[in-house]
Amino acid sequence: MKDQLRVTVIGASGYTGGELLRLLSLHPQAKITQIVASSKSEGLSISTLLPNLSKTIDVPLSTLDIPAIAKEADLVFLALPHTQSLAPVAELLSHKKLVVDLSADYRLKDAQVYEQWYQTTHPNPDILKDAVYGLPEFHRAAIAKSQLVAVPGCYPTVAILQLAPFVAQDLIEPQSIIIDAKSGVSGAGRTPSQGFHFPEANEAIHAYKIATHRHLPEIEQGLNYLRSSSGKIASASPITIMFTPHLIPINRGILSTAYAKIRSGMTSSDVKDIYHRFYQDEPFIRVCPQAEAVNPRNLRGANFCDLSSTFDPRTGLIISSGAIDNLVKGAAGQAIQCMNLMVGFPETMGLTSPGLFP
Amino acid sequence: MKDQLRVTVIGASGYTGGELLRLLSLHPQAKITQIVASSKSEGLSISTLLPNLSKTIDVPLSTLDIPAIAKEADLVFLALPHTQSLAPVAELLSHKKLVVDLSADYRLKDAQVYEQWYQTTHPNPDILKDAVYGLPEFHRAAIAKSQLVAVPGCYPTVAILQLAPFVAQDLIEPQSIIIDAKSGVSGAGRTPSQGFHFPEANEAIHAYKIATHRHLPEIEQGLNYLRSSSGKIASASPITIMFTPHLIPINRGILSTAYAKIRSGMTSSDVKDIYHRFYQDEPFIRVCPQAEAVNPRNLRGANFCDLSSTFDPRTGLIISSGAIDNLVKGAAGQAIQCMNLMVGFPETMGLTSPGLFP
Amino acid sequence: MKDQLRVTVIGASGYTGGELLRLLSLHPQAKITQIVASSKSEGLSISTLLPNLSKTIDVPLSTLDIPAIAKEADLVFLALPHTQSLAPVAELLSHKKLVVDLSADYRLKDAQVYEQWYQTTHPNPDILKDAVYGLPEFHRAAIAKSQLVAVPGCYPTVAILQLAPFVAQDLIEPQSIIIDAKSGVSGAGRTPSQGFHFPEANEAIHAYKIATHRHLPEIEQGLNYLRSSSGKIASASPITIMFTPHLIPINRGILSTAYAKIRSGMTSSDVKDIYHRFYQDEPFIRVCPQAEAVNPRNLRGANFCDLSSTFDPRTGLIISSGAIDNLVKGAAGQAIQCMNLMVGFPETMGLTSPGLFP
Amino acid sequence: MKDQLRVTVIGASGYTGGELLRLLSLHPQAKITQIVASSKSEGLSISTLLPNLSKTIDVPLSTLDIPAIAKEADLVFLALPHTQSLAPVAELLSHKKLVVDLSADYRLKDAQVYEQWYQTTHPNPDILKDAVYGLPEFHRAAIAKSQLVAVPGCYPTVAILQLAPFVAQDLIEPQSIIIDAKSGVSGAGRTPSQGFHFPEANEAIHAYKIATHRHLPEIEQGLNYLRSSSGKIASASPITIMFTPHLIPINRGILSTAYAKIRSGMTSSDVKDIYHRFYQDEPFIRVCPQAEAVNPRNLRGANFCDLSSTFDPRTGLIISSGAIDNLVKGAAGQAIQCMNLMVGFPETMGLTSPGLFP
Repeated sequence: MKDQLRVTVIGASGYTGGELLRLLSLHPQAKITQIVASSKSEGLSISTLLPNLSKTIDVPLSTLDIPAIAKEADLVFLALPHTQSLAPVAELLSHKKLVVDLSADYRLKDAQVYEQWYQTTHPNPDILKDAVYGLPEFHRAAIAKSQLVAVPGCYPTVAILQLAPFVAQDLIEPQSIIIDAKSGVSGAGRTPSQGFHFPEANEAIHAYKIATHRHLPEIEQGLNYLRSSSGKIASASPITIMFTPHLIPINRGILSTAYAKIRSGMTSSDVKDIYHRFYQDEPFIRVCPQAEAVNPRNLRGANFCDLSSTFDPRTGLIISSGAIDNLVKGAAGQAIQCMNLMVGFPETMGLTSPGLFP
Repeated sequence: MKDQLRVTVIGASGYTGGELLRLLSLHPQAKITQIVASSKSEGLSISTLLPNLSKTIDVPLSTLDIPAIAKEADLVFLALPHTQSLAPVAELLSHKKLVVDLSADYRLKDAQVYEQWYQTTHPNPDILKDAVYGLPEFHRAAIAKSQLVAVPGCYPTVAILQLAPFVAQDLIEPQSIIIDAKSGVSGAGRTPSQGFHFPEANEAIHAYKIATHRHLPEIEQGLNYLRSSSGKIASASPITIMFTPHLIPINRGILSTAYAKIRSGMTSSDVKDIYHRFYQDEPFIRVCPQAEAVNPRNLRGANFCDLSSTFDPRTGLIISSGAIDNLVKGAAGQAIQCMNLMVGFPETMGLTSPGLFP
Repeated sequence: MKDQLRVTVIGASGYTGGELLRLLSLHPQAKITQIVASSKSEGLSISTLLPNLSKTIDVPLSTLDIPAIAKEADLVFLALPHTQSLAPVAELLSHKKLVVDLSADYRLKDAQVYEQWYQTTHPNPDILKDAVYGLPEFHRAAIAKSQLVAVPGCYPTVAILQLAPFVAQDLIEPQSIIIDAKSGVSGAGRTPSQGFHFPEANEAIHAYKIATHRHLPEIEQGLNYLRSSSGKIASASPITIMFTPHLIPINRGILSTAYAKIRSGMTSSDVKDIYHRFYQDEPFIRVCPQAEAVNPRNLRGANFCDLSSTFDPRTGLIISSGAIDNLVKGAAGQAIQCMNLMVGFPETMGLTSPGLFP
Repeated sequence: MKDQLRVTVIGASGYTGGELLRLLSLHPQAKITQIVASSKSEGLSISTLLPNLSKTIDVPLSTLDIPAIAKEADLVFLALPHTQSLAPVAELLSHKKLVVDLSADYRLKDAQVYEQWYQTTHPNPDILKDAVYGLPEFHRAAIAKSQLVAVPGCYPTVAILQLAPFVAQDLIEPQSIIIDAKSGVSGAGRTPSQGFHFPEANEAIHAYKIATHRHLPEIEQGLNYLRSSSGKIASASPITIMFTPHLIPINRGILSTAYAKIRSGMTSSDVKDIYHRFYQDEPFIRVCPQAEAVNPRNLRGANFCDLSSTFDPRTGLIISSGAIDNLVKGAAGQAIQCMNLMVGFPETMGLTSPGLFP
């Protein structure tokens, strides 16, 4: 089939890499030509790492060899830990490949901010400038023209989507945003450690990295972009957020509860309808009738983001509930959505599966 | 599209009905024309009952009206509680519709056995005779020619698949089989009750209906059919099994551990290889390298059955591990596999998605 | 033994009643003389309702007969749904019994506020005036002299304890408090319903009753009491809070994350040390070294409240993490703590068990 | 208090050590004088390893120094991985200390069997001979006179208790026993690894070490002891069992389902009553009205073993359901029960707490 896009997935042993493979196996126009994992797995079947893929994907595992990849792929996904994508991305670009990077390495536009939060000097600040932030709802046209897309983090995806209508329309106080997010354990990756040992993470919940999580500057960058690009906002006071992530005992999913002070003049029904009006043409945004219905359990394996907002007249706050599957709309699904845009496929191709319930 | 098969799902408010809809939405040749739920939901969106289906299926809910269904459907799935399918199946057959029934009502060939285990006289013993047991691995040809398929229960599916190679080849003592099965809570349906209340079912496990579960006669019927139809077995002593189901705190999935006394002459490697040899051409059977890898977590949402077997020379027992997703290969997926056979689609069409991991 | 306090528990079939019985069975000076459940259980063993209590408590179940109870009890616990305690409490008081009520019926001092949030006219506003709010950390002396103690709700217990040092010392803006709380499912009681059915509540999280939960006025009453009674605060502007509860898939435990705007002049280390300084003599408050350690998993079955606070200089917010076992410090344990005070036992008697880990 | 028994716990960083400390803190006559963990924790508070113990136990952590321990302890518990207890036990005995070892090192009476299953030559076969197997229900008198007690493994505890009445009274075929056991993840210890990483162990179940688990020879030794010591059994054919453990996604608890061929002459009601008759005076055995009620959820933190048995006339099998908390009756609780016997305290002292429900 000449229409098949040849894709390679680098970093297939983790949950994000595994989810990319699962979703790509459902994509009618993408053909997985190579799967790259660590050198000790070379030649093995992907099902030795990810037994769910047994009998569905039969490409043997290779090691990271950029020239070899460049020969067999039109587009490359990188699902590597942060800092490990820095060099391979640059090399793949030099081979004129389309690149979709799922790490944090090319998300922050300002190399100094990257350095501050990731304790590493960014070696390719020029590439950083050309990279496009892969949130299609706000960067659709740029993604379509880009050679390098940096897929947003899981928390930033839902936080930006839930706050965008308020920020872009200048409806809330820019210093009043608090995001209290709750993530399933797959968000922490696949490497075992004490905190994720079943008997310690089960029947448990805790906050972590309060006001210091690396997704914080990414959320601020995303919201400030919306604020500055809206054209509506005279005052340049940037948005500063409070962000508290929590770990909850579920495998997949994020629920993000965001609070902000509403500007005067908004009514309860304005707030209630805001997502419906703002996102009515978006294929992957679902507006829920009430906050109780925003629940990651309705999103397992699906590329949707579910949203609902409430206004509390007693305190003058809006309360927004947003949910995604952190591995799909928060990572692999969004990456494929970007791929579709980059190569001119319909944006929703291969991504319309409903979530698994229960 | 003239090739589209028009299908109706009756009983859409439960987990099995929901799973049918989810899987049908992924099927390239099936078109859902009607969704039937209880009369109080008439006209509502399916997402009011199953929010995971929001924005993926937009057929409004109807009530049970057989003539209306007959007009708009080529094939009808019934996902109703046992005894409630008895009449609608007969009526749909009289309208010359293809029928796939997921209840227990047409599974047992002997009306008296049905009466004994379900405390109801079977009103249509003649239809019972024509119904085909919908386990494609053993009834492929009959399913393809049938107008009515009775989809196996979840426990019988995995139990028969895991024991078939031993029974059909007369390798085990017919009176020695013990099946110790463990099922996730979705197997108990969607109606709330004390035993399935989260704080009571979570962090818990218990056996139930020991030696009295209604799937017991179905398993025995399935194994005795294999035994008698194998042509190898002179002695007619029928198989009698011990069957103990357990409830475990997971949403989906069954793990079935079966024990049986091996006939002399088998070696460990004979046992180890048996599934590979017996099922090598089966698209939905996956043979695992060892028992530890047979785990419903690798099967969430997938139509596979994973198998492994072990021989213990100390006791002369074979130990078989089998796993399925009770809602897919144990219900809705198998139903669609039957549908594919009944209408001449490729058997695996729409059913090759890998499981969700994690 | 003449020193034994004779106690009766009314409402023993629910989780709170069960927890009272479990804790009372460990109390060296309390003797359970009667256990009252619904009339259909009369004469049965408590283990038919609560199998964990088998072989540890052998008092047969009785029905609600106040004169009979008054004869055999010095002190009575009521663990009934709200509105159902209204009459029995009054009657027990008229029999000169000590009463510890775990419902919401005598918590709110203002009968009109009760009416507004519970849609019922309060029949005994005079008793309401005499009832003492059973949070020993702030009402110790009054509890000791009281005949009727209204045990706080689970959310108010942790919310008031975590915010008290800030409110009593006037360190935060009174209109800036946001409480984002997460509760295990036992908090919703023992009656099965769709939302608490295992496959729906498992692998799930959602917000509910945003800004409308009945514990909201109770938290505001508690904090405003601290504010007005501190003597430090000139301005009378009362505290108004935003309160969002969430349901999480654990059996027991609440984690409450509270946010508030700090008044100028506080430093990070002031905030870090605040609980240590404020609560140093409290036997049931544990100050954790960091927010990550505040986790209900460390509190299963224990009467402690774990606390930690953080200051974020970027936003000027304090972030407080508080955790309790909702059935112990949030209900039955606190009730026994009040009992100890009311009858002159050491406050911690029978309540010093560590939590179960894991 | 001169009556206080001075005890030391060696190996306090794991779940079993932690559970010993929790239970000892509730024991009225035991005083923890030393807690031994790894050298890197020396001087730290136990709550740095086990935060649930914060504010309940304040003995600082020491390192393993036998002479120092001997000075301050009357009795020493060892909760170390197998093979690591071999030397310290011998040394402590030479200091005339009472020793309760929770490892497998002194459980198997035959040094060659130990060597075969643990791949280590046993250095102290003479001590092995004097060690008493710490299952009080069958070795009460010997434990009371012993200086060294080897606490049974978790699976053997429940397996021996559930099969004992049948074996000791020669009611079942000695070669027919199959034990299908299901354990929570705490049974695997506290060291993180891939298989116990939350997203891999959650929503999952699998068999492991089929017919090769190290508890197998321990169960056979225990049952054969009962068989040979019953005096009723002429034939000396020893018991050989099939044992299949499974891992299930709960923190604590084992459910063991055992099957065996009944000898002729037994009736359903004989089987139904067997535990009641056999164990009527045992303080820690609870007979449940039916198998459905045997559930580790009723035993969290409690030292009971819950039992029920069923006879299936169709197959001639008895099916026994047994449940314990693997960390209590399966480890730390049983160890304290042995301690009580060794020093002459009432056997149930400190061990009568009901389980936590839910």
